[in-house]
Formats: sequence, structure tokens, C-alpha cells
Amino acid sequence: MDNNEQQILHSWAVNAKPWTRLVRDKKIESRILITNKAIVEAVVETQPKTFLDIGCGEGWLCYELFSRGFNGWGVDGISDLIESARCMGDVRFVVSSYSDLPSQKFGVINQFSCFICNFSILGEHTLHEIAEAGQSLLESGGKIIIQTLHPVISCGDFPYENGWRKTSWTGIADESFHPAPWYFRTVESWIHDFHLRNYRLLKLLEPYHPITKKPASIIFIFERR
Amino acid sequence: MDNNEQQILHSWAVNAKPWTRLVRDKKIESRILITNKAIVEAVVETQPKTFLDIGCGEGWLCYELFSRGFNGWGVDGISDLIESARCMGDVRFVVSSYSDLPSQKFGVINQFSCFICNFSILGEHTLHEIAEAGQSLLESGGKIIIQTLHPVISCGDFPYENGWRKTSWTGIADESFHPAPWYFRTVESWIHDFHLRNYRLLKLLEPYHPITKKPASIIFIFERR
Repeated sequence: MDNNEQQILHSWAVNAKPWTRLVRDKKIESRILITNKAIVEAVVETQPKTFLDIGCGEGWLCYELFSRGFNGWGVDGISDLIESARCMGDVRFVVSSYSDLPSQKFGVINQFSCFICNFSILGEHTLHEIAEAGQSLLESGGKIIIQTLHPVISCGDFPYENGWRKTSWTGIADESFHPAPWYFRTVESWIHDFHLRNYRLLKLLEPYHPITKKPASIIFIFERR
Repeated sequence: MDNNEQQILHSWAVNAKPWTRLVRDKKIESRILITNKAIVEAVVETQPKTFLDIGCGEGWLCYELFSRGFNGWGVDGISDLIESARCMGDVRFVVSSYSDLPSQKFGVINQFSCFICNFSILGEHTLHEIAEAGQSLLESGGKIIIQTLHPVISCGDFPYENGWRKTSWTGIADESFHPAPWYFRTVESWIHDFHLRNYRLLKLLEPYHPITKKPASIIFIFERR
């Protein structure tokens, strides 16, 4: 794991508690207006028999899917976030790095029909680790549903090419945050990297802001071949 | 054919001669710097046994591919453009609307291994006509290579949703042009519309400007299933 990826984990360990408050108090406008609904709809349309929410954070998406009758697990590298998730009443949450996923136990589930990564592929190698985990933990024909910032929109004034970016955000609402670097990928690269690893793109969605009508995020649905 | 698609054809009939001069005098900077090279590379990498350049215009791309040893034909709805293409010495050019493609003759070729649409899907129905033509004219496993404006960049201040747009361009270099409407599609919609019609995305490319490092166009490579 390189230094940037370590910094991401460190920042999320520091941010776990304020992040949980923000999510539970519904303080992040883009999530409430657009992206939460978009990821739930994408999963519901896929109708997975079992899901693994990778980078599940404080667990809101797992609980939303549990309440709709879907069976699955949440996993996150940050133990404070998993503790917050379990505190809401369900035990189907486990602490794990992405690279250790293949050796984890998920109750009686050996293979999942769907991986979900909702704004949780933040590093350079995390993509490869998740694609690799899918080789053993995803059924053949299983799906990976990824939501992330829309590359063309989030590129800002930087060159439109893959690379590490600094985050300037240090606060949302009245919570303060420890900033973390993140790895920028072009749309071309997201698709190329999964196609290289024996997945193929089934669908690409561009949820947009209901008022500004600009893309707020991008969702890729890949299928394991 | 609706009124907007008729206007496109009318404008290109009017623009055929000045357009041919512009292309042959290499007056369109984005083409010279980026997009010509990008489409040629995409075709060369695909290594088609035979190609059909749909909306070939004055024929530069066909001649470029002929000179590299590829066999194929150019087709365009505007007879003045096909005449300009044939004037350069090769007979493998034919006038046809996109909807009439399946009934055309292309020498001894009955099916192509590749369609190329280089900035030539300008209308709403033209996409469906090309996808439909591929059902008979493309081999199983045949490719469609499409280059077009990058939707997220070309959207400008308009809502990011499909719809007809006016073009304001009335001149390039010292040539004047008859403006034509064009049909804007989101990235989501380009992929969705082909996936619906029994094609699947193999590759998505985002050629970028060498100086500004911003995407200049987008290339989709679909495969007929």
C-alpha cells in the first residue's frame, strides 16, 4: 500500500465519528438530493440475491437494502465505522481491508451476486483489489455497481488524466474533517481497468442534479465474465 | 424523417463544397491536432478486414485507411461530398441515406467487419438507422466505432439531457456555413441506446487536447453480439 492510500485510511479513521453524524443527520445535500436514491435504484434494478457493500461506512445503504428485503453484508476498513453500523442493530458488518476480502467470512454466503462500491474506491490500488476480490467472491455473471464523482465534472481545472489529487474539503456543515488525497480516473480509465480484468460494462448512468441539470455522479455497472 | 433531420441534410448539401475545402486545406484545428489521429488509431487497433465509413464526407478517412492497406467503402447522404471523394481517384464511394444502407451494393462485400461513424451521427434517428443497418451489414462480432463531441464538454450551459440543439457556427476560417441542428445525447444514452439494440461497449476513449489537456471528443467502440 503506498503512502497516499495509507493517508486515506488514516483520514477516514479520524473522520469516522463526525462522518457518521453527518450522514445520519442528512447534512450532505448531493447525497440527499441525488446520489443516495441513484445507488439504491441501481441496486434494486439489478435485483441481487446477495450483495456486499464494500466501503459501507456507517451502514446506511446496507440498512436501506435490508429493509427492502435484500440479503447482504457491509464491509469497511475503518473499525469505528463498522461499530457505528453494528450499533444500529444488525450483525452483518465486518472490518476488512479491500485486499483481505477473499479471506473473510460472511455467514453462510460464499459468493455474492453483487458488489456495491458507493463512493468508496478512493485510491489507485483499491480498484484492482476489488476487481481481484471479485474473482473469488463474485458469482460468474455477478455485478459490480460503482458510484463515484463524475470524472469530467470533478476534474476542475486539472488535466483530464489519471493521478492523485489533494482534497481541499476540511468541513461540511459544522463538522471539521481531516482531508485525504484521492485518485482521479477518467471515464476511459474506469472502463478500461475493469475490462482488462475480465469484467464488462453493462450500464453507465449519469445521475443529475434536479435543479442545475448537471451530472452529479456517475454509476458503472460491470459484469464478471 | 423529422424536420430537424431534413434540415441537417439540407445544410450539408449547402455546405458540401466549402466543407471539402476546409478539410483539404486542414483548417479545422481540433481535427488536425487530435480527432483525426484518434479515429485512425482506433480503426488501426481494431484491424478490420473490411470497413464502411458511414457519413464519410469528402473521403479523407477512407483514403487514409486505403493507404494503410485496409479495404472498405465510404457512404454519405450528400452527393456533392461523394463526388468530391471519388474525384480523388477511388470508386469505393456510394451515395445513400443511412436508412437505405441495407439495400446498397458495396462491390463484392456483403458484410463488413467494422462500421466507422466519425462525427456523422448528428440526428436523433440516425443512431437507430445505423444500429439497424448493422443487423444485416455487420458480421457477428463486428464493431461500430463512433467518434463524437464529448457530451459532458459540449453540453455547455444547457441541461445535461438528450435533445435537439441549435448550432451557432456560421463560419470556420474564411468559409461561411449554413447552420444545422444536432441531437445531443448523454454518455449514458449513447451506451444505453446501443446496448438496447444488441451491441455491447468494448471500449470508450476520451482523446484530449495536447495543450489544454481537456477531452476533445469521445470514441465508443461497440461490438455486435
